[in-house]
Amino acid sequence: MLSHANRDRLLVVLVSPRNPLNIGAAARAMANFGFPRLAVVSPYSLHWREARSAVGAPTLLQNAVECASLAEAVAGCTLVAGTGTLAHRKPEQLVIPLPDLAALFLREAARGGRMALVFGPEKRGLTRDDLSFCHLLVQIPTVPEQPSMNLGQAVAVCLYDLISRANDPAKSAFDPPLPELQPDRGSNQPASSATLERLAGIVDQTMQASNYSPAEMRGANSHDLRVLLRRLALTEQDARRILGLFRRILWRIEH
Amino acid sequence: MLSHANRDRLLVVLVSPRNPLNIGAAARAMANFGFPRLAVVSPYSLHWREARSAVGAPTLLQNAVECASLAEAVAGCTLVAGTGTLAHRKPEQLVIPLPDLAALFLREAARGGRMALVFGPEKRGLTRDDLSFCHLLVQIPTVPEQPSMNLGQAVAVCLYDLISRANDPAKSAFDPPLPELQPDRGSNQPASSATLERLAGIVDQTMQASNYSPAEMRGANSHDLRVLLRRLALTEQDARRILGLFRRILWRIEH
Repeated sequence: MLSHANRDRLLVVLVSPRNPLNIGAAARAMANFGFPRLAVVSPYSLHWREARSAVGAPTLLQNAVECASLAEAVAGCTLVAGTGTLAHRKPEQLVIPLPDLAALFLREAARGGRMALVFGPEKRGLTRDDLSFCHLLVQIPTVPEQPSMNLGQAVAVCLYDLISRANDPAKSAFDPPLPELQPDRGSNQPASSATLERLAGIVDQTMQASNYSPAEMRGANSHDLRVLLRRLALTEQDARRILGLFRRILWRIEH
Repeated sequence: MLSHANRDRLLVVLVSPRNPLNIGAAARAMANFGFPRLAVVSPYSLHWREARSAVGAPTLLQNAVECASLAEAVAGCTLVAGTGTLAHRKPEQLVIPLPDLAALFLREAARGGRMALVFGPEKRGLTRDDLSFCHLLVQIPTVPEQPSMNLGQAVAVCLYDLISRANDPAKSAFDPPLPELQPDRGSNQPASSATLERLAGIVDQTMQASNYSPAEMRGANSHDLRVLLRRLALTEQDARRILGLFRRILWRIEH
């Protein structure tokens, strides 16, 4: 059984959910499988209020965190997994099939990290920009003719998979070789999303201050930088060291 | 990947579903995971029409079979798995955790059988009587505080589990020892639910004709008989032989 402490290391994030029934269904699946932590990014406020006040809404909906941006929602997480299909998309992140996620989650939890599992809005799913905050993209093995799942069902399927694989010692999550996301560096913790965002911010400023980015390339360069920083699998110590370096560089440029 | 031929060997059965949104969600999960065969037992006709005529309803809803009884729905199946929680229930059937179902399904399919996966109505789930048509009860590993899943989510989770475990040769479904439901008897097929029902019917008649069952025990005895016949794991040949014997006995009693 996945321990309470480990379930607490998973944050479910719903980005701009529209339908209150879907929010309720996602929360119900979380309650069914015992995951207490939910964050909602810029929900439509009327629908959000409706979902929270629904009869029988689980307590975790009352305790859900409301965030203005995905960056804010995942700030405390060290591994951010987006969900979606590969239809019409050539992802910049590592793509893993859902059955491989449990092993990554358990490893992250074992070294003190926290994972966010991010679901996009019903109609369009996660955007390329949303995905730039993710370390990897999790693919649910749907058929090509009907790839897109209902939001509440996608949440249920992902959480069930985590529970059922962590549950079963015969199919140990640590047996298959894991994709090397973050090479182990002794007691060093993986960098949190908040630290990576601070780092991205200062590198961005430096790129502008040094006239690296022409105005029309600024958005694309910021995006590429975010994707790159997540692929590097920095430890918190790495990230802080580089942050210090760029602060120094920026100060030199500006003075 | 689970082959098309194998997906065709699974029948999803919804018993008296009430909410058209749930029927639609169940059908959508089936379409997502590529299972085409749906049967619905005595649905509320207004809601059933509404679900079928919904915009974007998958084709399999149009092709769904409508049945008056669960016995009729599962008649062609050789393995019938009910779903539900164990809360307030002491089941008479073998109970297996959902992750063990894929192995049983693959074995049944390999010897030419068909499996029904049966879901109860939203409020109350499958009754004891419904379960007497099932060989086993599948338990989804929900937490005790919130055991009962939404219908559409339960269907999604079960189908995903079948797909994901049949999908992954590393976790071969045939490795762990399987609960011995139906001992292998050479080329002999397991008895279909229709044959078992015919057998139950004639044994029932014989019990009455021989004054075995006092009137007030008749219902309970029929129920116990159905449960017993499924536990015996008869082959089609066994069942037909016993059927012949009871026909003969009944004829003797009546003439």
